[in-house]
Amino acid sequence: MRNFKLTLEYDGTHFHGWQVQPGLRTVQGTLEEVLTRMAGSRVAVKGAGRTDAGVHALGQVASFRAALRLDPPRLQRALNATLPPDVAVRTAAEVPLEFDAQRDAKGRTYRYSLLLGTHPSPLERHCRLFVPYPVDQEAMGRAAGHLRGEHDFTSFCAVQASAPTRTRTVTEARFVVEGPRTDFIISADAFLQHMVRIIAGTLLEVGRGRLTPDGFRAILEARRRSRAARTLDPRGLCLMGVQYEGATL
Amino acid sequence: MRNFKLTLEYDGTHFHGWQVQPGLRTVQGTLEEVLTRMAGSRVAVKGAGRTDAGVHALGQVASFRAALRLDPPRLQRALNATLPPDVAVRTAAEVPLEFDAQRDAKGRTYRYSLLLGTHPSPLERHCRLFVPYPVDQEAMGRAAGHLRGEHDFTSFCAVQASAPTRTRTVTEARFVVEGPRTDFIISADAFLQHMVRIIAGTLLEVGRGRLTPDGFRAILEARRRSRAARTLDPRGLCLMGVQYEGATL
Repeated sequence: MRNFKLTLEYDGTHFHGWQVQPGLRTVQGTLEEVLTRMAGSRVAVKGAGRTDAGVHALGQVASFRAALRLDPPRLQRALNATLPPDVAVRTAAEVPLEFDAQRDAKGRTYRYSLLLGTHPSPLERHCRLFVPYPVDQEAMGRAAGHLRGEHDFTSFCAVQASAPTRTRTVTEARFVVEGPRTDFIISADAFLQHMVRIIAGTLLEVGRGRLTPDGFRAILEARRRSRAARTLDPRGLCLMGVQYEGATL
Repeated sequence: MRNFKLTLEYDGTHFHGWQVQPGLRTVQGTLEEVLTRMAGSRVAVKGAGRTDAGVHALGQVASFRAALRLDPPRLQRALNATLPPDVAVRTAAEVPLEFDAQRDAKGRTYRYSLLLGTHPSPLERHCRLFVPYPVDQEAMGRAAGHLRGEHDFTSFCAVQASAPTRTRTVTEARFVVEGPRTDFIISADAFLQHMVRIIAGTLLEVGRGRLTPDGFRAILEARRRSRAARTLDPRGLCLMGVQYEGATL
């Protein structure tokens, strides 16, 4: 038995998210199916981020144990030759047997991508939300600053979420602006259901002047989902990377 | 009657190209349908570049005459609210009645996008061709240099093309490299059918060492389609812009 770690890119448009769901096309399900066929016996894949339907990844990390003879470069090629075109293996490595991509992840980074300006972009429509009104970037940046640190993020968590605690530690929350393209980058130890999409939606309320940066902080402190804005479209969201301890993982 | 000029972006994936074809979904047909409805009488749209099925545009230019009361900014908003999500108006302007986007175009710029490296990219798969083998960028750049100037491009033209003359003037032919992303940029007064895709395919033969830059020049000079490589996939091709005389057009 060997343990492998994969870094995955996927276009979430036609997936019902990461996690296996009976009868639905998911990234985890697609990977498990291909790996099970390759290994000749049932392979279970763990993923660091449970991305929702429509959410993309440039740096999802997954691990699985299997009795495979292939070395990692050949495994990568075999998987990329077999997987459907909307998911690909960016890197493959063999890791110690005890490594678990989900349990051992120390942090995740997500990006929510916006397109400002006077016209939508057909070529970027699957991975960038078009915002047709002017926004105050500076105010959005100031509001985002209030996210850093350890907080109870109940206001920015789906009501139905099953998380036992809603306290998370945000280590990075900033905007990267390049012309009409504005990316919100957020890193935390872990994320709650819909957290980035609700935060991004509420930051947009600041951007359009319906909320001040202080008002944004008050919403965070209120710990009530109803105070925050709606959950933004999944197409703007992308799991960028997962952080682990140590250099080899 | 007024004359309008539009700059268009489209995702060519689900279009059977620019030009109207009975029973098929095309960009020209989609635009004419929407504009005819807005104007209340038949509108004919001219386009500067006759992009093939699957080819994209970031800077297609079109013109049309119509008895519309809308000023250009409102026309742009009305069109973007009505057009399907895979085509959008980037700019709209009113132009002198005699302007014709097709006849008056002095030059066109296309980009053919490649992704080199060990793995394909699901998120860029619709607009970038994955090249799984190593390529010699420097050799490709030298071969591309032979394209500049006035030449008979019969070797790089679809056999069935109806063009009366196959002489074109290439003003720019170069590669822009950014990590694993390699873009071939080519500008000319006009292009022949499949010209950029055949050139890009033949340059890739140079890149993988099956042809020297001098051999590439010999193919250009041979004026025989059978000497050049196959036509590359349309998904890598994008019409970037169209040049006109004068600043206002």
